[in-house]
Amino acid sequence: MMHASRRGFLGTAGLGAATGLIGATSNAQAQVAPSRRDIAIAASEPFYGIHQAGISTPMQDALYFAAFDLNTATRAEVVGLLQAWTKAAARLTAGLPAEPGVQETDSPPLDSGEAAGLNPSRLTLTFGFGPDLFSLDGHDRYDIAAKRPAALVDLPRFAGDELVAGQCGGALCVQACANDPQVAFHAVRQLARISYGTASLRWVQSGFSTANKTQGTPRNLMGFKDGTMNPAGEALAPVVWAGAEGPAWMSGGSYMVARRIRIALEHWDRMKLAFQEQTFGRHKASGAPLGGKAEFDAPDFQATDTDGNSVIPDTSHVRLAAPVNNDGATILRRSYSYNDGANFVAERWPPWRQAMEYDSGLFFQAYQKDPRTGFIKIFDRMSKIDALNQFTTHVGSAIFACPPGIRPGQYIGQELFEVA
Amino acid sequence: MMHASRRGFLGTAGLGAATGLIGATSNAQAQVAPSRRDIAIAASEPFYGIHQAGISTPMQDALYFAAFDLNTATRAEVVGLLQAWTKAAARLTAGLPAEPGVQETDSPPLDSGEAAGLNPSRLTLTFGFGPDLFSLDGHDRYDIAAKRPAALVDLPRFAGDELVAGQCGGALCVQACANDPQVAFHAVRQLARISYGTASLRWVQSGFSTANKTQGTPRNLMGFKDGTMNPAGEALAPVVWAGAEGPAWMSGGSYMVARRIRIALEHWDRMKLAFQEQTFGRHKASGAPLGGKAEFDAPDFQATDTDGNSVIPDTSHVRLAAPVNNDGATILRRSYSYNDGANFVAERWPPWRQAMEYDSGLFFQAYQKDPRTGFIKIFDRMSKIDALNQFTTHVGSAIFACPPGIRPGQYIGQELFEVA
Repeated sequence: MMHASRRGFLGTAGLGAATGLIGATSNAQAQVAPSRRDIAIAASEPFYGIHQAGISTPMQDALYFAAFDLNTATRAEVVGLLQAWTKAAARLTAGLPAEPGVQETDSPPLDSGEAAGLNPSRLTLTFGFGPDLFSLDGHDRYDIAAKRPAALVDLPRFAGDELVAGQCGGALCVQACANDPQVAFHAVRQLARISYGTASLRWVQSGFSTANKTQGTPRNLMGFKDGTMNPAGEALAPVVWAGAEGPAWMSGGSYMVARRIRIALEHWDRMKLAFQEQTFGRHKASGAPLGGKAEFDAPDFQATDTDGNSVIPDTSHVRLAAPVNNDGATILRRSYSYNDGANFVAERWPPWRQAMEYDSGLFFQAYQKDPRTGFIKIFDRMSKIDALNQFTTHVGSAIFACPPGIRPGQYIGQELFEVA
Repeated sequence: MMHASRRGFLGTAGLGAATGLIGATSNAQAQVAPSRRDIAIAASEPFYGIHQAGISTPMQDALYFAAFDLNTATRAEVVGLLQAWTKAAARLTAGLPAEPGVQETDSPPLDSGEAAGLNPSRLTLTFGFGPDLFSLDGHDRYDIAAKRPAALVDLPRFAGDELVAGQCGGALCVQACANDPQVAFHAVRQLARISYGTASLRWVQSGFSTANKTQGTPRNLMGFKDGTMNPAGEALAPVVWAGAEGPAWMSGGSYMVARRIRIALEHWDRMKLAFQEQTFGRHKASGAPLGGKAEFDAPDFQATDTDGNSVIPDTSHVRLAAPVNNDGATILRRSYSYNDGANFVAERWPPWRQAMEYDSGLFFQAYQKDPRTGFIKIFDRMSKIDALNQFTTHVGSAIFACPPGIRPGQYIGQELFEVA
């Protein structure tokens, strides 16, 4: 990791009179030895590398996600946008303003400024290419339709899908994660501004996580630990990174499936603890699988009670999600909870609640080398019989091919556009 | 400040097998001496006191705000709700689960659980009473209409108001602020659950701030420092706390005005830096008033340029907001930025943008001893001529009387209901 501050904002902005306060603050802070947490907050994640950051990177506190439509029919403009985004992303993740140069007072700001004085906050920016980039309404706009990977499938309609068009799809996406929500939003805002005229926002999503906090495995808003079975260490690479089985331009990349899952929290909160635990197949407080003692105990899917019923119920979430019950299918989950206000809901089953309910739940993101043998394989059955479905509704959906990382001087997706 | 962890969740939940992992984590952390920041994150704010916490308390990272309607005609049920909320709030702000007791597996959880293992995160819960508590549609439901303070006025319609009914008003409110958004939401969620049958959510708002970060005075999403002129130290009390001029039950309390202000960020970002600075009356990078050098320099409202124009323009935000230009009127601002997605906007003036735009801006909160001589006095003129209005739209509005703090054994608002 490298260290940087956004004091560069002042220098490059050419506002000499402005350097007093923030400079003084930074000097004062330099007198105090940084703690582990200060370092974690101040540190920046490397932008360049074999893989894009933000996939196997340990989760940050905050997410701001944006999907874009492309408004141009010109291949060169798409390439120009990816070049400009790459340059800006390298700067932003290092804690620098989006665009270099000397700020003139009679020009719009080179950077909107709300991250000035903030640390890089471990910002990562992860770019993805959606089906609409390769062809839109049958049009091969950019002469790349033949390069669409087979793994970038159109997601099937799953049981229970209640998708809202305005929260689905997109030609491009940017996933911004940082330990400060203002830093994450700031980054997407700069990229969207740079895209003006070429691309436009299609949908956005903000989220939060406790992965960095004192909680251990973070808890989702249903109060259960989420991510216990995630692949880690040496098990991660074979699950996540595309290889020689697909096009060379995606080798070292990954496929992202994003699902906006609204959760009926008010209803869930009125369910008995035993019912909640049967639904998940885990104990709520410890995260241990039913029949186990500790969070990371291997679930015993064969165990039965004295009546012959499965200790971990047949429709429980943990049973249906486990690789061992999916022919080994595994995904890397990197999900954030979301909280987008409240709106009116009329429940049509007990307790017959008709009231304002939280528009809240999980912005689920899964990374894998092939969604056909990853998310789709696992979720097809889950969408039909997971007991959790009584409380969850999938209202948004998208799939993106996230190309591999790059070296300085390259741009994201360069091989897709420049190698025959 | 006191220190606590949520390990109590495990103890009171009676789930002995569950204590392994979180306990181990906490012990491991105890081996490392806490830094200033660790302390700030772990610390809890006192719930009891002369004033409610969350008003003069230094701002936290995250806000979750909820306004409630009351669904009961029975005074005793309102009192019962305030008693239950008070008990739960004392526990939640100390990092304990919402309700005490031994968790039975065949009962709903005493606490939804997503804050288990998290620090108290400086959670504050601040309660307010809206006009609808005192009378609704002319009905004195709870026999307290005569006790409504004169200062709890119905806010007038201001120039430019585009208020959405579903984001206004309420009989009761809870402002939850914490250094973790999951802790803030968790707290309101428990209180809403406890209110089931008596009260229901009317509207909610989440927000974020960089007040705790390395930025100094936090910057709003327009990129400018926000709060430089806030009263501090000895100047705060005379501005904020109600005294003998009103009803005794509000002595030591404060009046909150909340305004949801959507900001046209995309449009703002295309304005020249000099124009932005003229609009605010301050330099963007330093926060110094125009004509000054440093953020806390006193603005010189008399200064003119060689053409005789005010250096700090007549319609600039800083001029119109300054106490010296408002017969001394002063408010304590405690505002959070918000980010609620994006939706379609058709701009009707240059640059004629028609696109998805951020539903984003400022959840403005002002505390004062009397809104008639505070927010209303200041904003009445500002709403007509502030240059900033070109980019801001007030879409939500509410006013609440926040009663004084309490001692253990009392409940919030007790004097309103029990003293003749």
